[in-house]
Formats: sequence, C-alpha cells, structure tokens
Amino acid sequence: MPQKTKKKEVKPTKKVTKDSVYDIAIIGGGVVGFAAAMYAGRFRMKTILFGDKMGGVIVTTDVVENYPGFKHLTGQELADKVREHAMDYEVEMEEELVSNIEKNKDIFKITAESGRTVNAKTVLFATGTKWRKLGVPGEEQFANRGVHYCALCDGSFFKGKAIGLVGGSDSAAKDALVLTQYGKKVYIIYRGEQIHPEPVNMERVQQKIKEGKIEIINHTNVKEIKGDKFVKSVILDKPYKGKNEFPLDALFVAIGHIPLSDLAVKLGVKVDIKKEIIIDRTSSTNVPGVYAAGDVVDTKFKQAITGVGEAVSAVYSAYTYIGEQSSKRK
Amino acid sequence: MPQKTKKKEVKPTKKVTKDSVYDIAIIGGGVVGFAAAMYAGRFRMKTILFGDKMGGVIVTTDVVENYPGFKHLTGQELADKVREHAMDYEVEMEEELVSNIEKNKDIFKITAESGRTVNAKTVLFATGTKWRKLGVPGEEQFANRGVHYCALCDGSFFKGKAIGLVGGSDSAAKDALVLTQYGKKVYIIYRGEQIHPEPVNMERVQQKIKEGKIEIINHTNVKEIKGDKFVKSVILDKPYKGKNEFPLDALFVAIGHIPLSDLAVKLGVKVDIKKEIIIDRTSSTNVPGVYAAGDVVDTKFKQAITGVGEAVSAVYSAYTYIGEQSSKRK
Repeated sequence: MPQKTKKKEVKPTKKVTKDSVYDIAIIGGGVVGFAAAMYAGRFRMKTILFGDKMGGVIVTTDVVENYPGFKHLTGQELADKVREHAMDYEVEMEEELVSNIEKNKDIFKITAESGRTVNAKTVLFATGTKWRKLGVPGEEQFANRGVHYCALCDGSFFKGKAIGLVGGSDSAAKDALVLTQYGKKVYIIYRGEQIHPEPVNMERVQQKIKEGKIEIINHTNVKEIKGDKFVKSVILDKPYKGKNEFPLDALFVAIGHIPLSDLAVKLGVKVDIKKEIIIDRTSSTNVPGVYAAGDVVDTKFKQAITGVGEAVSAVYSAYTYIGEQSSKRK
Repeated sequence: MPQKTKKKEVKPTKKVTKDSVYDIAIIGGGVVGFAAAMYAGRFRMKTILFGDKMGGVIVTTDVVENYPGFKHLTGQELADKVREHAMDYEVEMEEELVSNIEKNKDIFKITAESGRTVNAKTVLFATGTKWRKLGVPGEEQFANRGVHYCALCDGSFFKGKAIGLVGGSDSAAKDALVLTQYGKKVYIIYRGEQIHPEPVNMERVQQKIKEGKIEIINHTNVKEIKGDKFVKSVILDKPYKGKNEFPLDALFVAIGHIPLSDLAVKLGVKVDIKKEIIIDRTSSTNVPGVYAAGDVVDTKFKQAITGVGEAVSAVYSAYTYIGEQSSKRK
C-alpha cells in the first residue's frame, strides 16, 4: 500500500498544524478584531482571526472623525490601518464565516463554513452586528432594488432621485447626509418627535434642511413598500401632505443593528434583552475563556474607539487566563 | 470717578466669561484628556482642559507601537496627534495645574494655581500618575545628578557610562532598552526572580543580554545611593560579584507610578488601596458628575488606548448626565 505510506509521510506536518492549539481565536474581521489580533501578536499568542467580510461595518462609513488621533478618514481607511498594524505581527487571518463553536473541557473547537476546524484556548467575539430590518411588506421583495441598508455602498445608484431614509440616530443622520450627495432630496422618516444625532451632525442636517436637500417627516412609520420592478412609493401610517402613499425611488433603512451573538449564546454566554453579550470591565463574559468586544457587547455608547479599547482589555484577560490555566496544570 | 466707570465698561464681558459655566472641566493634559476634549467638542459641550505639562507621561516614551492604527510613532507624536485632533473643535486648553476643586450643589468650582477659578457642571479626572520613588538615602540628594526617572528624557547624559535601572515591568524593560542606546552597559536591578515585560520586549532584552549590553541582577534591592557631586555607586542588599557596593554612574528608577488622585479624594471620590480612582464601565465615579479615565483609574491593564476608550465613555456619561440634570430642573 504505497499510497497510504505516502500519505502518512505527508500527513504529520499537516496534522501537527491542525491539532496545534491556538491561544486565541478572534471571531470578527472589523477594527475591533484587528486591534485584538495586533495585541495578541504583541503578546506572542498563537492567534487566528476569522472574518466574514474583512473590514467590518465601519467600511460602510464615509467619514470617521472620532477615532482619536485621526482627524478625518474613511471607515475603509481606518479598517485598513488597523488591519495592517495587526499584520505586522504573526497572526493568521481567514476570510471565512465561523459556523460553530463548541467547548470540550478547556478547549474550544471552532468550525468554519468550509468545514475547517481549529482548536483554541480562548475565544474573542468581535462579531459586531447586522442591519436591523423594518419587517414590512415589500422589504424583502425590493431588497437591493430600491430598499437598501448601506447609504455609502448604494447611495450612488440614486442620483437626482427622491430618497427616503428611515431612522433617527446619529448613524441615520450621517447616512442622510451621505445621500444628499446623490439624491435630489432626502426625506428622513422618523417615528419620534425629533431625530437625535450627535450635535455636530445635527447641525449639518439643519444646514441641509435650509438648503432644501433634507426634509424630516416625523411621528411617522413606513407600513409598506410598493413598486413594480423597483421601488415606486411607500405607504405611511400618517398622511404626509395629505396622502398616505408617498412616492420615492429608494428607501434606506437605518434603524439600528442586531448583535451577532448567536454563536456565543450557543456556548452558554449570557446576553441582555437586546441580545448584546454581557461583559465586565475586563471584557470577560460569564464563560471562562470567552471574551467579547465592540458592537456585539452591552456597552451603552458604542464607538470604534471604545470597541478597540475593549478588544485590548479582552486580549490581556485571555493572556492572563491562559497563564493561570497552565500554572493550574503544573 | 471716571476710572471706575471705565472699569465697569470693560468688566461685564469678562465677568460673563468667568461666570459662565463649563459643561465639562477635564483635568489632565495627556492623550486621555485630549481624546476627552475632542469628544466633548464634538458633543458641542462647553469644554475646558487643564494640563500641568501638555502631553502627559506618554511623551517620555520613545516608541509607541500599540496604539491601534499607528504602527510606530513616538509618545510625543501620538500626544500631538490627539491634541491637534481636539483643537479641531471648540475647546479651551490651559497649561496650568489645578490646585483645588469644590462642589457647591451641582456645580464644581475649579481653582487653578494662578488663582483663576472656573465653574463646571462635570469634572473628568485624566490626571494620570507621577513616578514612584525608591525612598532610599541618597535618592533626593542625587536627584537629576545621577538619579533619574525618565530614561528617554535623561538617558543621553550617560553616553558610554554604567547605568543601573531598578524595576521589572514592561516600562522598566523599555527604559532599559532605551538606555542601551547610550550606556556602555545597563544593569537591571530587580527584587524578584524574573522581570516581566510584554513578550515582545522580553525578546529584545534577551537579545541585548546576548550582546552584553544588558545584565540582570535579580533578587536584589538598592539600599542606598552614594556619590560626591554625582552618583558613584549604589549599595545593594545582597552582594553582587562579591561586593555590596556596586559602582554606577547613574541609577534610573522605573518601579511604577503613583496615581494623581488627591484632588478627587478631596471631592469624596472613592479610590482603591493603590489610590486609583474606582470607576464603572461608564467611567463614572461614586460622585455624580465626576468621571475618571486613564492611568489614574483602577483598570488592571492600562494602555494609552484603553485610557482613550475610557475617556470617550466618560464624556458620553457627562453629556447624558447634564441632559438628565437639566430635564430634572424643568
């Protein structure tokens, strides 16, 4: 059986690589995950990072002006900088979604969508969030055909058009501002009394209102999205200018995000009512060896910089945990 | 009395400025304070920052490689970047030490060393730390004449000399590495078994040991510092190479820092046994309206980036606190 022998000759190296245990598996390829990888690399931890789409949600942001040290850059640029910083150290990065994580004794078995599995002593969830959907008729049907979630990615399709934007947060306001670069007019449709962006962005919105580029329709919800091949109108739950059906060429939905905490929950990690992972000041969860940082956690004020700080604390916690575990075994 | 009238004509504007209440007074002019000022500026808060020496302790650091996004820069460069970022917004910065802070009802009265007073609705302590001293005979006497605390500031005085360095932390190791650029040899004097820098710096120290540029004297304390006009030797509590008196041209002390929390304590802010200000995840202290961030707080793993994250959380907490207070008054 020469073939078998041949296989055996090759296998050991591969097997060693496969079986060797990573110190930390970072789940998430955004700035938070990258910052964690950089620190883990500095700590000489054997590190692997899995990211679905490298860069994370921040690459959908046109302008980042609030990461201390960088006055003004795009989300893509910031993500690239932190990623390159991490790549200065010995860390593996895999552009793959993780489909499952199991804990066997003290070791986590991480399975990627490709079927690849790796073992790790600790896991850091830096999985972030996905867009929250309106959940109204027409939303699925017209997805990417007038219904969009990323103003920066898809805004340019609607040059000179009438664009609706649902939401009232700082992100929503920033999206509306991005959309004014393309649309004839942007209608912010908000369920409450007043949108509530950061003051600096509120001022920018007010300027655009003066210029006739933004109009706010408050106390109003979108009930339905209508069209043929593409979006033609939305049905509002309150008449606007006398009519419930309001013509629009596109509707951007900016009503927040859903934390991507399902894999963590399966591991027994506690989440709050919003499904955000509950961490303490050391970025530890209730499960030993499991840490979390960034948009997926229960921090009230979530910014790139606060997530990055949490990531650094998490890596330090993982590092000390591994030290404690190995001294227990001695 | 024309003079008096004249004065009266000028005074009102000044008085309005003096009496007008700041939303936030940031005490401390390091990266943490600057990041806070930047965010406060973004929030359109009326902001004043007091710093003793602008830049803070990080400017005494030669190499910063662990602020995510910047692969490699000096502490001074990082401090300048974050300071310039803050200056993009409307924030006042005063290069002055604060000598007292009192709380009268909901308003804090901050007195600077010059006697100037300002009122603020919230206070953020980003005061950092000062060098910890050995507390041995000769330390005061030879201060700045062979006894030093900042390797980067004062190392170059000792080109080709025998330099001692007391300490075993990551900072101590980094200082020792800086000193090898100048000294003939650097002797790390450490009370414990093994120095414990970050692995990346441990490797660098080991390389220098191989090169004969660093030697570690462990399980040893400095009992006394001796000399004439300048340091000539130190007395060790254990013989080294058969002698307790060890000839040295300089002794750098890198045994940690003392948190600058005295003003906070006077305000009733709780500190831990190390005198570090106790904060929660929102960077709030036990005193309403008082926040803290950075090296002065009780975070275990203190880095520039974690302090900056805390600063951002603190400003958000102050911002929401002011909102709650003003709605209470309505």
